[in-house]
Amino acid sequence: MHDLRPIGVFDSGVGGLTVLAALRRALPAEDLLYLGDTARVPYGTRSATTVERYALRVASHLYEDGIKALVVACNTATTHALPALTAAGRRAGVPVLGVIEPGVAEALRRTRSGRVAVLGTEGTIRGGRYQALLAPHVREVQARACGLFVGLAEEGWTDGEVARLVAERYLAPLRDGPDTVILGCTHYPLLRGVIEAALPGVAIVDSAESTAVATRERLAEAGLLRQAGTGRSRFLVTDNVERFQHAGRRFLGVVPKPVALVDLDTPTGVFGGAA
Amino acid sequence: MHDLRPIGVFDSGVGGLTVLAALRRALPAEDLLYLGDTARVPYGTRSATTVERYALRVASHLYEDGIKALVVACNTATTHALPALTAAGRRAGVPVLGVIEPGVAEALRRTRSGRVAVLGTEGTIRGGRYQALLAPHVREVQARACGLFVGLAEEGWTDGEVARLVAERYLAPLRDGPDTVILGCTHYPLLRGVIEAALPGVAIVDSAESTAVATRERLAEAGLLRQAGTGRSRFLVTDNVERFQHAGRRFLGVVPKPVALVDLDTPTGVFGGAA
Repeated sequence: MHDLRPIGVFDSGVGGLTVLAALRRALPAEDLLYLGDTARVPYGTRSATTVERYALRVASHLYEDGIKALVVACNTATTHALPALTAAGRRAGVPVLGVIEPGVAEALRRTRSGRVAVLGTEGTIRGGRYQALLAPHVREVQARACGLFVGLAEEGWTDGEVARLVAERYLAPLRDGPDTVILGCTHYPLLRGVIEAALPGVAIVDSAESTAVATRERLAEAGLLRQAGTGRSRFLVTDNVERFQHAGRRFLGVVPKPVALVDLDTPTGVFGGAA
Repeated sequence: MHDLRPIGVFDSGVGGLTVLAALRRALPAEDLLYLGDTARVPYGTRSATTVERYALRVASHLYEDGIKALVVACNTATTHALPALTAAGRRAGVPVLGVIEPGVAEALRRTRSGRVAVLGTEGTIRGGRYQALLAPHVREVQARACGLFVGLAEEGWTDGEVARLVAERYLAPLRDGPDTVILGCTHYPLLRGVIEAALPGVAIVDSAESTAVATRERLAEAGLLRQAGTGRSRFLVTDNVERFQHAGRRFLGVVPKPVALVDLDTPTGVFGGAA
């Protein structure tokens, strides 16, 4: 009833830090171990089989590091790899949660009109997982790939004229449509202001929050919660620590640290006994 | 005096197709073999050592495929890997050309005021190769990382209000400064219109053109030119053929084909005897 192992959080880069921040708020006692696969970011434009291969490699590294649960904090990885990751997690005795199902559940609670839209990367939208989960329960699902939102978030251009115009161009076709919109990419919460302005009166679902709540529930059910103390976060990346810290600050509010570089082409981790 | 082997052209993704198009015009008789490392694109945000490792792997695949020259059609790979690629090319008996030196030479021919600027990805600008090559010969060098230009080019938003505003924001600090600007990223020629509009009266150097001319000269000196016939192009990518063809059309004017998927984690190529 007092499991000290960290929760693993996995993303292709910095975007999943929005999920890490939500987990930190929902589960303040837990240690969090984040892995950003920055050598192979972005997943959003890769093929399904490539994303699945990358995701399984990352997960196996985190299992070796002794995590007690895995949160797939990346919509594209959840889209293409959740079934394979869940199967691997079962073999390792580790529960696996994606970011898509909690966001879908929240959108279904929020919508009144039964018209829901999802915004995401090309890979997430093409993968169709949001659409498949929503369709049986609502009147209409719309999906929009908003490729430039990621670049805007990483450049820090999250408000102002450029961000406003880009949001306008992507979202104008959704006006007078859905009453609920899911931010189906972990970068998009940084652009929430301009997205809301482009879609007045529409409910915005940030799946980072929903995922954090779902993770707390799952850990409680499994008796895996840490009951007391103050959790720490640490970070692994597969390339370019400096850029991760620089861009990561926009997503986390503070500079992510400590960060270690990990080589996923070799079988051993870098924290080793120092974890 | 009549060498039928193809010229290898290498980029991290689709951007190098602007160089391929320029080579096609300058060397209409030559066969061209393009390799886009789309499983590991973008190189622009990766560390120097990672880019060098990826570039050497790609080059070795092209050497095995029997190329007679290698054009590194990627500014980031030229920045971080040209010395290592040139050394490997010497061992393979293959001349290697990057995109940076020809663009620098052209800028030095064009500038009157001796004030030159270069626009590029974060990796290219951080790498400092343009700055190091220009500085001894000019009064002033300015360098600007324009991260969002790549996303705009790939999204096809190359004119209109968004592109105009983004160019304005990146380039306004250069106004009343340099008289010559190098497009130090193979994506940027697609945005030439908005870049010129943001910098009226400034000479724009497109290094794709300069590189094609330099390649023709180098092959002529080495006696490697194909003297007659109509060259063909073929394409290799490391992931997602469909996306390469879709995005590639914007860069090449036509859909790139034939395209084959190649796995750089295994030692053998895919065209094999069918080449």
